[in-house]
Parts: sequence; C-alpha cells; structure tokens
Amino acid sequence: FEKLKNWVVEIAMKTKKLGEDDPRRIVHSLKVGLAVSLVSLFYNFDFVYDGFGSSAMWAVLTVVVVFEFSVGATLGRGLNRGLATFLAGALGFGAHHLANLSGDKVQPILLTLFVFLLAACVTFIRFFPRMKARYDYGLLIFILTFCMISVSGYRDEEILEMAHKRVSTILIGGLTALSVCILICPVWAGDDLHNSVANNIEKLGNFLEGFGNVYFKKSEDGESNKAVLQGYKSVLNLKQSEESQVNFARWEPRHGKFRFRHPWKHYLTVGTLTRQCAYRIDALNGYIQSEIQALLQAPLEIGSEMEEACMKMSSESGKALKELAATMRTMTLPCSGGGAAPHIAKSRLAAKSLKSLLKLKTGLMLEDNTSDLLNLVPAATVASLLVDVVCCTEKIDKAIEE
Amino acid sequence: FEKLKNWVVEIAMKTKKLGEDDPRRIVHSLKVGLAVSLVSLFYNFDFVYDGFGSSAMWAVLTVVVVFEFSVGATLGRGLNRGLATFLAGALGFGAHHLANLSGDKVQPILLTLFVFLLAACVTFIRFFPRMKARYDYGLLIFILTFCMISVSGYRDEEILEMAHKRVSTILIGGLTALSVCILICPVWAGDDLHNSVANNIEKLGNFLEGFGNVYFKKSEDGESNKAVLQGYKSVLNLKQSEESQVNFARWEPRHGKFRFRHPWKHYLTVGTLTRQCAYRIDALNGYIQSEIQALLQAPLEIGSEMEEACMKMSSESGKALKELAATMRTMTLPCSGGGAAPHIAKSRLAAKSLKSLLKLKTGLMLEDNTSDLLNLVPAATVASLLVDVVCCTEKIDKAIEE
Repeated sequence: FEKLKNWVVEIAMKTKKLGEDDPRRIVHSLKVGLAVSLVSLFYNFDFVYDGFGSSAMWAVLTVVVVFEFSVGATLGRGLNRGLATFLAGALGFGAHHLANLSGDKVQPILLTLFVFLLAACVTFIRFFPRMKARYDYGLLIFILTFCMISVSGYRDEEILEMAHKRVSTILIGGLTALSVCILICPVWAGDDLHNSVANNIEKLGNFLEGFGNVYFKKSEDGESNKAVLQGYKSVLNLKQSEESQVNFARWEPRHGKFRFRHPWKHYLTVGTLTRQCAYRIDALNGYIQSEIQALLQAPLEIGSEMEEACMKMSSESGKALKELAATMRTMTLPCSGGGAAPHIAKSRLAAKSLKSLLKLKTGLMLEDNTSDLLNLVPAATVASLLVDVVCCTEKIDKAIEE
Repeated sequence: FEKLKNWVVEIAMKTKKLGEDDPRRIVHSLKVGLAVSLVSLFYNFDFVYDGFGSSAMWAVLTVVVVFEFSVGATLGRGLNRGLATFLAGALGFGAHHLANLSGDKVQPILLTLFVFLLAACVTFIRFFPRMKARYDYGLLIFILTFCMISVSGYRDEEILEMAHKRVSTILIGGLTALSVCILICPVWAGDDLHNSVANNIEKLGNFLEGFGNVYFKKSEDGESNKAVLQGYKSVLNLKQSEESQVNFARWEPRHGKFRFRHPWKHYLTVGTLTRQCAYRIDALNGYIQSEIQALLQAPLEIGSEMEEACMKMSSESGKALKELAATMRTMTLPCSGGGAAPHIAKSRLAAKSLKSLLKLKTGLMLEDNTSDLLNLVPAATVASLLVDVVCCTEKIDKAIEE
C-alpha cells in the first residue's frame, strides 16, 4: 500500500512538472477534449444522425487522428487526409467500376490484383525520403481508402453515396479540428522552430561566456556553475526534431511576423552550424574535464596573460553568439557597429594575441622547463574556439540572408 | 516534353538506387501488397461478408495501419491497437450504459462530458516521454474507440454486437499482418539495431586508421581518401533512430541469436559513447581541415618521431574500435590476449611516448625557434585521441557486460 502511495505521488509530481514545463500542453489537452466534444454533440443531434447514419463516426475519427500539437502538423495531416481520401476514392471507384464491367468470375481476381499492385507501389513510394517527410500520412490513407472502396461489395450507386457521406463527414471533422486548433491559443510550429534555434545559439553563448570563469579562475566553488554550463548538451541531438518542425512549419499560413513562404530551410542550415559548434564545445568540455581530474592537485598555471587571452576569446565569442540570438529573435538587421560584429572582431584579436603570446612563451621556456606539457590546455582551447569563431561568422551570413 | 522525360528518368534512377540500397524495401512493399490482398480476398468470400457485414472493412484498415517495416514495430502497433480497442470498448460500453440509466435529457450532456474528460486526460498522458515512446499509438486508438462507442446512438445490445464484430475483425486483420510480417523474410528491429551500432563503431575505427595516412603523409593525392574518411559523419545524428529501434526491439520475441529479454538498453549506452567519440573526431577533423587550408603552402613539419607517434595512436585506437565492432558482431568475449585490449594498450603507449617527445621537444626548442606554433597540431590531436581512448575502454566495459 505504501508503494502504491509513493507511486501515485511520483506520478503526480511528474504530471505537475510536465504541465509547468510547457503549459501549452494542458491547453492542448483541453483543446482536443473540446474538439471531440463538439463533434460528438453534432453527432448527437438527431437531424444529423438521420442524414449521415453511422458514417458520422468518421468525423469523430478524423478529429482524433488529425488533431496535433502545432497548427502546421494539424494542417499537414488534415490536408493529407482530405486529399488522399478524395484521390483514392476516385481511383477506387474507377477500379471498382472497371472490375464490375468484366463478368462475375473475373471481378474478384481483378480487384485483388489492383489492390495488390497499388498497395505494393504506394508502400514503396513511402520510402522516398522526400515523400516520407511530407506525405507519409497521406500515402497511408491513400492505400487505406483505395482498398476499402475497391474491395467493398457495394453496387456503384451505393459507393457513390458512401463516398459522398465520407468526404463530407471528414470535411466536418477536419474543419472542426482545424478551427479549434487555430482559433484557441494556436501553437505555431514556425514560432517554436524560430525560438528553439535562437535558444540553442544562446545556450552555446552562455557556455562560452561562463566557461572562462569556471575553468580558469575558481575551480573550487565552481560545482554549481558547472551544472549551468551543461545546458549546451541539449543542442547536440536536435537534428530530427528540427527537421520535422521545418516540415510542419511549411504547412503553416502567414502568421505573426512570418510571411507565407518564410525561408524555413535556412533554419536547418543555421541549426546544422549550431550543432557543429556544439560538437566543438563538447570536445572542449570533455577534454578540459578529464584534464581537471588529472590535475586536481596541481592547479592549471598557464601564465596569467594567456589565461586572460583565452578567457577574452571565449567570452567575446560567447557574447557574439548571444548577440546573434538576439538578432534572430527580433529579426532586425543590426546597424553597422552594433550587433555581433564587434564581438567577433574582439575575439579574433584575442586569438591573435594568444598566438603571439605562445610565440613569446617559447622564448621564455629557456628559463622554466616545467610548464611544457601544460601548454596543451590553452592549445586545444584555441583550436576549438577558433573553429567556433569561423562558425559564428558563417552563421551571421545566414542570419543576414533571411 | 523534354523536361518530363528527364524527370521520369530521374525518378527511375532514384527508385533503382532506393531498391539497391536496401532490397528489403522491395520485399516489404510486396509483403504489404500480399497482406492486403489476403484480407480483401477474405472480404470477398460471401459467407464471411454475411457474417461481419460492413465492419469487415476494419480488417483492411487494421492491416494497412499496423503493417510496419520491422517485426518489432508491427507487433508493437498490433498489440497497442488490440489492447486499446478492447479496453476502450469496455470503458465506452460502461459509460454508455451509465448515461442511458439517467433519463433522456441528461444522457447527451453526460456523454459529452465523459468524452471531453477522457480525451483531455489521455491526450495529456501522451506527453509523458515514456508513454509516448511505447504506447503513443495505443493511447490514440483508446481515445478513438471510446469516443466512437460512447457517442454512438445505438442501443446496448447493438453496441455489444458491434464491439464483438470489431474485435474479431481487428484480430483477423492484425493476425494476417503479423503472420505475413514474421513468416516471409522478417526484418528484425533488433538485428538492425545490433548491426547499426557495430557499423558505427567500425566507421569511427576506419576514420582513425585512415586518418594518419591522409593528413600526415600524402596531402596531395589524398582527395579520394578524404572522401572515404567522411563516413563517420553519419554517426553524429542517429540518437533518435536508435531510440525508436530500441523501442521496437523490445516488442520482439526471441529470434536468432537474441534472447527474449536481450538487454537492449545497453545499446543506447554504447550508442551514446560512440556518438561522443564521433563528436571528438568531428572536432579533430574540422580543426585539421581548417589548419590544412591555412598551411597548404607550408607543409606540416612536426618532426617525424611525433608524426609517427600520432599515427600510431590513431591507427591503434582505430584497430581497437574495429576489434570491438567485430566482437559485438559475433557476440563472443575474446580470449584474453586477443580482441581489442592489446590495441588499446599500444595506443596508450603511443600516447605516453608522444608526451615524452613533447617534453624532449621543449628542450630542443633552444635550437630552432620556428616550429613553435605548429606544436598546436599534434597537441590538439593528442587531446582528442586521448579522450577517444577513454571512450574506447568504457565501451569495452559495456560490450563485455552484455
């Protein structure tokens, strides 16, 4: 019994957290409930029931299956379903009619052959990556509807009537789902994508800004700060979710600050660059962490000037990334002299001064022969950060393009 | 017209490539066709048609919707669908009965309320990551069936009859899909997962083995080799597909060399470590590439001994990774003295000798003051590769564990 209680409490905690993380989830659940209730009310009115008969359940089915979290996904599914049902219905009717023309003996064989060919072909088409991304659901519904109509034992007139009913109920269900989805607190996949790309850039910026302080200055009380720096890790594996969001966003009409044909593809490029940058940071982070464990007793002493230069590089490129994120958010080109450009220039400068310091250092090495191996630490840092800065400039290009 | 011809040719080429890349796709398409034809034949027999009426179309629907590429996915969907239909049917019947007990006026209101509550709650449950991974489809079908049954205007007896028909047709459809999926050239998600994880490790090994030759020895004719080395890039973004494959694999029964409760979760750990290693390699690759562009005129001269050590480190850890991949493939523990262990030991040795070389070098720097900055190259290499080796040993641990 105690176990059960713990379990219930745990579930309740998780539920609360899920709701707090993104309150739109609760709103979405309520919206689904509302849409389904609307359709079922419609079902309950007798005059409708008499008109559509049991095919009114297709309206319920459509609402439940089509309603998705974001407007883009809902629109995509709805259009896919509608179009596929219509096309497959027409084709299925044709096949059925054709088979009926040939006598009673041949008809079932012919129909089975049609069904086999169509199902096999369309299933293969679903493997094309481009089709899969945008029309997967539509192709599924296409097979479904074609098979159901061409196989059904009805006469031609009955099929026409059934098709008519089905199309109208699906339209009703789809429209209900869409209007609830768009009119009540809509969730735009495009907005989400835009924000998440900007957030990712900002996370990397946060890491780079905090990085110098945590790793060079105060290794003792840095535990809590280190946890903050792990934020970048969520950036590493977002490729697939970004791609699906781009696909959803393309279905969406003009809304808010986005035009109808907003260049969503650019987000993929920016996202890829961000991820490349995150890989560098992950490598840097992993390297430094293993190094710190090894040298916990002997603190890193790489000369205060070099430390200074490294910190400057990392914090300036961090600032540049944050500026870029802000630019993306507001979607305005910064006036010349503002924005990220000066920070990038500064971090380049710091990289140069670090290089000359390294040269100087080799001269000084005549005197102290102890700090040879420790040179590796700033070296790796420099390497990664330089690549970072290159990424940065590339990203600016992209951000300006849109 | 010319355009159309080009387009057709292009499509044909793509189709051929898609089929050649993975012939199982063609087989899968034919299997879907077969399963659908089987069910539709069944539909065509009059005696069945009389028995089930129009609800026989649920069998067609079930086959089309449930049939997936791998056995695990098909089983998962089928079980989800069957269970959810059964549970929701029972619950829906209860709700309908309860609503009928209260007079004619209250009934529609009560039913709509039930539908609203259930749809909202279950939609929220779908947001739990664990539920989403394994039971997303089942929850969708649960809402669907509940709404359709509790809202339908039938009398209680009619509902029971309908439910009976629906469950049996779904069973027929599901069993047809499953038997075609399992009996004819089955595609096991577990096998795919196993192979893809081993392949990924091997790809990294290939990179590390080839890396030294391409970047240190022959920068001129290395263009073709460089292309070979890009194989590791596909490893970077596989997290989500690995996760879904693990979810599918868990549905699968005992087959081939896998027990029923094969520790699929370990594959995720190994996959994550592989990806971490790939991030390091990506950073290394990006760094060296930008370096090579900068120093195209002045070839890298870092002393032949250091070059030797770097190459040794990278090729030995590459060999170790390949051994690990082979071990995973055959699923046998290597006898002591064989397998990956000696290669790891050798690469550790090379790393050590590189360290001492670096120390020596600092002493030699008194004489030539030119090669100071170029030290960065091996330094970064060392850093990344050391982390690599650590990854490697961790992975061995995991691989032995299973």
